[in-house]
Amino acid sequence: VPGHYVELLSSMMDVQNQYCVSRPIYSIRAFEHVHERQIRETKSLKERFSGSCRCSTKRVWNIVKMYFPVLGWLPIYQIKQWLPGDIVAGITTGMVCALQGLAYSLLVNVAPVYGLYAAFFPILTYFILGTSRHLSVGPFPVTCLMVGAVVLTLAPDSNFMQPGNTTGVNGTTVMVLNAAARDTQRLAIAMSMTVLIGVFQVAMGVVQLGFLVRYLSDPLVGGFTTAAALQVVVSQLKIIFNVPVGNYNGILSLFYTIGDVFKNIKQTNLVDLVAAVLTIIVVMVVKEINAKFQKTLPVPIPIEVFVTIIDAGVSYALNLSGHYGAGVVNTIPRGFIPPQPPDVSLFSSIAGSSFSTGVVSYAIAISVAKVYAAKHELTVDGNQELLAFGISNIFCGAFSGFVATTALSRTAIQESTGGKTQVAGLISALMVFIVIMALGPLLQPLQKSVLGGIVVANLKGMFMQVLDIPILWRKNKTDCFIWVFTCISCIVLGLDIGLLTGLVFELATVVIRTQFPSCASLGNAPSTDIYKNMKDYKAITEIPGIKVFKCTAPIYFANIEYLKDQIKHKVGFDAVRVFKKRNKALKKIHRLIKKGKLKFTENGLVPVEPLGVDNEAFEREQDPELVKEFEQDMKGGTSPNTEVEVQVDWTSVLPVNVNVPKVNIHSLVMDFSAVSFLDVMAAKSLKLILKEFLRIGVSVYIAGCDDEIIMKLEAMGFFDEVVNRGMLFLSVHDAILYIKMETSDNLDDPMADKVGGTDNDNIRHSQL
Amino acid sequence: VPGHYVELLSSMMDVQNQYCVSRPIYSIRAFEHVHERQIRETKSLKERFSGSCRCSTKRVWNIVKMYFPVLGWLPIYQIKQWLPGDIVAGITTGMVCALQGLAYSLLVNVAPVYGLYAAFFPILTYFILGTSRHLSVGPFPVTCLMVGAVVLTLAPDSNFMQPGNTTGVNGTTVMVLNAAARDTQRLAIAMSMTVLIGVFQVAMGVVQLGFLVRYLSDPLVGGFTTAAALQVVVSQLKIIFNVPVGNYNGILSLFYTIGDVFKNIKQTNLVDLVAAVLTIIVVMVVKEINAKFQKTLPVPIPIEVFVTIIDAGVSYALNLSGHYGAGVVNTIPRGFIPPQPPDVSLFSSIAGSSFSTGVVSYAIAISVAKVYAAKHELTVDGNQELLAFGISNIFCGAFSGFVATTALSRTAIQESTGGKTQVAGLISALMVFIVIMALGPLLQPLQKSVLGGIVVANLKGMFMQVLDIPILWRKNKTDCFIWVFTCISCIVLGLDIGLLTGLVFELATVVIRTQFPSCASLGNAPSTDIYKNMKDYKAITEIPGIKVFKCTAPIYFANIEYLKDQIKHKVGFDAVRVFKKRNKALKKIHRLIKKGKLKFTENGLVPVEPLGVDNEAFEREQDPELVKEFEQDMKGGTSPNTEVEVQVDWTSVLPVNVNVPKVNIHSLVMDFSAVSFLDVMAAKSLKLILKEFLRIGVSVYIAGCDDEIIMKLEAMGFFDEVVNRGMLFLSVHDAILYIKMETSDNLDDPMADKVGGTDNDNIRHSQL
Repeated sequence: VPGHYVELLSSMMDVQNQYCVSRPIYSIRAFEHVHERQIRETKSLKERFSGSCRCSTKRVWNIVKMYFPVLGWLPIYQIKQWLPGDIVAGITTGMVCALQGLAYSLLVNVAPVYGLYAAFFPILTYFILGTSRHLSVGPFPVTCLMVGAVVLTLAPDSNFMQPGNTTGVNGTTVMVLNAAARDTQRLAIAMSMTVLIGVFQVAMGVVQLGFLVRYLSDPLVGGFTTAAALQVVVSQLKIIFNVPVGNYNGILSLFYTIGDVFKNIKQTNLVDLVAAVLTIIVVMVVKEINAKFQKTLPVPIPIEVFVTIIDAGVSYALNLSGHYGAGVVNTIPRGFIPPQPPDVSLFSSIAGSSFSTGVVSYAIAISVAKVYAAKHELTVDGNQELLAFGISNIFCGAFSGFVATTALSRTAIQESTGGKTQVAGLISALMVFIVIMALGPLLQPLQKSVLGGIVVANLKGMFMQVLDIPILWRKNKTDCFIWVFTCISCIVLGLDIGLLTGLVFELATVVIRTQFPSCASLGNAPSTDIYKNMKDYKAITEIPGIKVFKCTAPIYFANIEYLKDQIKHKVGFDAVRVFKKRNKALKKIHRLIKKGKLKFTENGLVPVEPLGVDNEAFEREQDPELVKEFEQDMKGGTSPNTEVEVQVDWTSVLPVNVNVPKVNIHSLVMDFSAVSFLDVMAAKSLKLILKEFLRIGVSVYIAGCDDEIIMKLEAMGFFDEVVNRGMLFLSVHDAILYIKMETSDNLDDPMADKVGGTDNDNIRHSQL
Repeated sequence: VPGHYVELLSSMMDVQNQYCVSRPIYSIRAFEHVHERQIRETKSLKERFSGSCRCSTKRVWNIVKMYFPVLGWLPIYQIKQWLPGDIVAGITTGMVCALQGLAYSLLVNVAPVYGLYAAFFPILTYFILGTSRHLSVGPFPVTCLMVGAVVLTLAPDSNFMQPGNTTGVNGTTVMVLNAAARDTQRLAIAMSMTVLIGVFQVAMGVVQLGFLVRYLSDPLVGGFTTAAALQVVVSQLKIIFNVPVGNYNGILSLFYTIGDVFKNIKQTNLVDLVAAVLTIIVVMVVKEINAKFQKTLPVPIPIEVFVTIIDAGVSYALNLSGHYGAGVVNTIPRGFIPPQPPDVSLFSSIAGSSFSTGVVSYAIAISVAKVYAAKHELTVDGNQELLAFGISNIFCGAFSGFVATTALSRTAIQESTGGKTQVAGLISALMVFIVIMALGPLLQPLQKSVLGGIVVANLKGMFMQVLDIPILWRKNKTDCFIWVFTCISCIVLGLDIGLLTGLVFELATVVIRTQFPSCASLGNAPSTDIYKNMKDYKAITEIPGIKVFKCTAPIYFANIEYLKDQIKHKVGFDAVRVFKKRNKALKKIHRLIKKGKLKFTENGLVPVEPLGVDNEAFEREQDPELVKEFEQDMKGGTSPNTEVEVQVDWTSVLPVNVNVPKVNIHSLVMDFSAVSFLDVMAAKSLKLILKEFLRIGVSVYIAGCDDEIIMKLEAMGFFDEVVNRGMLFLSVHDAILYIKMETSDNLDDPMADKVGGTDNDNIRHSQL
């Protein structure tokens, strides 16, 4: 084990005493600076390029393989080892996939058959284009709900009311819902949105924007998916209870929907409710069993399939729909619909939601893909995945399916049952194909509430994320706030606006974390070159007369004011106030000398006769004599008084009644080793701060400043005659050694100041 | 001058050679850590508190003075010195203020008299509550335009069309604009919004949110005000040309308005246009003269006043309105309107715009106040200013005025003509009062286009900000982008949404600046403890076998992936790939040893007989022997092979045909001195990165990590048996010395690795 971190200072002192303090000063604080960067980088780029592709044929093949990853693994497919696992995994996943497709179609508010299409088409393209070998591509509740929300907003029931054939009691026409027109419109919206999502994803893939998904941090995604799970459950309530509920969307829609459910709870269809509750219980219990006996079970029990088959049978036998008014699936046509172009006129109204849905669906897919890639030490390419999912969505949307991503649970099944490659995906697509072509009509008596139950039972994992909150709270408060804020805003504002709000909040935390940086006053561990925070350590001493200030954040517009206050607080005085008061005192002293009431002797300033108590609470700024003097100064002439070099010792008691704040330091060292960038405002303010200290005779040094920041400062015109490069030191210790050397000759009176000098500084400053 | 920064490395070398390299290792890398922070801070707070207010009477007085700053300066008002200046300044500013009030009322879309109220009421409250002595409080074009945009949106002309008395040609009723109803509604909106702005400002002042204004950085405000100036000019076009223009608001409204003006340009009223152009030219020229002869002129020429008086006279004499159809002010009633409550029902629809207008108006006021406070070495209190402006706006809104802030130009007049305190403000209010009570009706024949001209002429300073762009571009590209982006988005999207967009962009730049940090590979300046970026300096050498990696940014969700790539790039290999390939090679070696084809001798692994070329392109993962071995390992048992300690020298040529990437380092030192914070995702990923290096036998050390970050890491459960506190070193040099000491005993084979050990590491890792 290399060393021990926590030991006592005292024992260190023993070791350190043998280290001589009189270490020579690094009088050279910078080295010859060569702008070789560009040259080197160009060279290395060239090398890499020529190294990776020697001959052009191989190069072309590599590029083709990059865009069609299937060519990378299919030629080396090991039938004997991989195929059995892929077949078992494919069949199991395929059945689950078909059922989930049916169920999630309820979230999109389209007929169940389109869920089957959504579970079929994207797998085909992903097989060719995807880089992950384990993803089970298909619908996912959160993205389905996001599409469904748009569908409901743009095509609510109220848009499709038309005069019915029957006439009401008072002769008024009864309005009847034109369900066929509504469903056609809803399908058009869902598929257009899926195509647009695909277009956005392809565009992002082409311009290599895959990195944007990094902004969706774990806490953000955790809060978002938990809120989404709740939204999904609430959206299924109307199906589980089979009660009429209005179409709500946007802010607070969740609560309106719950309100409607409770208002109409008396109309609950008990057959549907019982079926749903039974489904939820059975599915959850069996999933628990699957997880517990993962090792002993050859394949997990595909409980969704059993539940569906049993319910379809029972429903058909007892005619639940006819006798008890249960909501059933009703029509599942056999076969496919020919591809159709998206409704381009809708694009402008769905662009925002499509973009957010596209980002979310990609984020879910890539995070799941990375988990399994890491497990099997494979790699996934973020930008290629964007292209793969984008093209899959365009393809799927054209064939009337809806948005494809993956579900963690389904991918887990595919991988745990032995799926090695996307061949398993292809076989699962085959299963869905069989359902579409042959078995579909058999599922027509299936209760919708059972599908709703399956949806809810599959959300357990997402709800369990709530348990992350206390863990996050202990680990990092900020991350915990991001989780909770995103979750609440997604519940209250809806998923897309909520996600955007959460994202802005998350970015704001980054800014806020740098806005209030921890500033420290450093002290020296005696006899070493170690400088540490005074607040954190005992046995650390401040060097008399020197203050070491450390800022651990980039300095920019948002925190420069805070930093200013921190410096003021750490040094213990306000440089501007000190300067003002000193000037006032100087003026008084001048006047007194002129009047002969004060004399300059070897012992400093001595009053000729005892001075009366000065009762003036306010300095008379308009004193005509002073004005004259000042004007002379401004015109470049020197008044006779300033030529008398009056040494005022600001640390001693002044002969005039002006309350000049004590300055107990002669040097300020700013440790910039943790400053990662500076902006224009920061440079301007920093220069001002430095000058305020310099004009009251406090030398300022900047230590540990990164070379890049020094270059930036130069570009911003930071340095001039007053604030110059001589202030820059390589380390705090170098600066301290330099200061010690500089101050050693005038140790008697280190804080002495010349009257003339101060005045000049004043003028110089006011000109800048 | 303290030292010179830029000198040559060679000369430094001479100085440094006398410094002994064999400096003892700081074996103690941390000191006794005391949680004294809380105690100390509480103490110092107490001291400050008791120090500042000794007796309770004085304490109460101080608090009262804090909330009513007038009590601080009025008792010590120096009539002789200050009053003359205040009177001159007050009269000059008062006249300008009244005229600007009239002019800016056009921007708000209310009758001119309300502009006079806006120029009068806020001064009264600010006199009592404000902390700035020089601000000229009153209307400002940008904020007026923001209020005006809301007024236009909520009360467009089209809402007030009603059937007229005359009947059209075909018997249809002609719709006539009900101007009275419209103006009443517009006034209600403007005053309600002003009150709401005040409420927001007071609320922000109470919860001390003044710091939020720091997000409005100089480039952001620059871009915003320039765009605002353009918006103001465009809004005045319809008045200057006196042509009908539709009410546009929101996205692209600027361009629609310009389009309308050009469409109707044939209807231009030449009298109005000529008057406006003359006004613009005269006002701008005289203002230029004022600036040039600032010192010789006793007071700046109040040209707006002269222009107005002359135009009112000419217009009255020639009856411009009647004879030439010029647009004139028409009605300026004498006196005041009794206070009215705001229309609370409007609040929900104006909340967003009110908030942004409130923030902008405060930001403008505080930045101008700070400029003059700094000049006169006074202070302004941000939160008290919020309260002062908030109450002023509520007061002003109640008396039918509109939003108050300050104008840089007017404040400049007040200060340059000798204004010392807010007494000047009070006198300027008196001037406005005289106009309201007596002179108002005299201005009734004044042309509106002259007022529009005055508005435009006053914007010169804001337009001149465009010249900042090239300067900013040279100084800091990012700040320049912020300027341009904010400006364009404010022009295209409108002021409030544009400002929000600019703000989000600005915050995003902060994130992006930390998202792609500059990562460096450090080298050592020979014979020193100085480590610098290899790319920046010649004569810096890398220590063989050690890589020093420096990251100069906080590490968090957005940049951890980038950092991972950077590490991979800097060390020159992919640790995961190395591990995978080594494992593959090891398995082969094991198999060969088992089959007796390979022998372990003193010279390392020696093949018993020449091996044939291995043609297997793909490693057979399902090799039944290996699977058995692996399963045994997993169950805790050790297969007989792993007990044989096979020393594999990974640097030499392997006896098996596996392409194991070369690892040319034995230690990786991460310099964390510039890392200012870490989040949960970063800690998790970082741990993974470290483990990936550790399992391929590369020791990892973390140097210069801040104590607070170490505490955070501990809280996040970063450290365990593998990643432990022994990795932490105080500085890069300490770590290097430690590594040198550690590696000196097995110099012969520093990169040797034990087969058994590697396997164990692998298993340990996969369990974590």
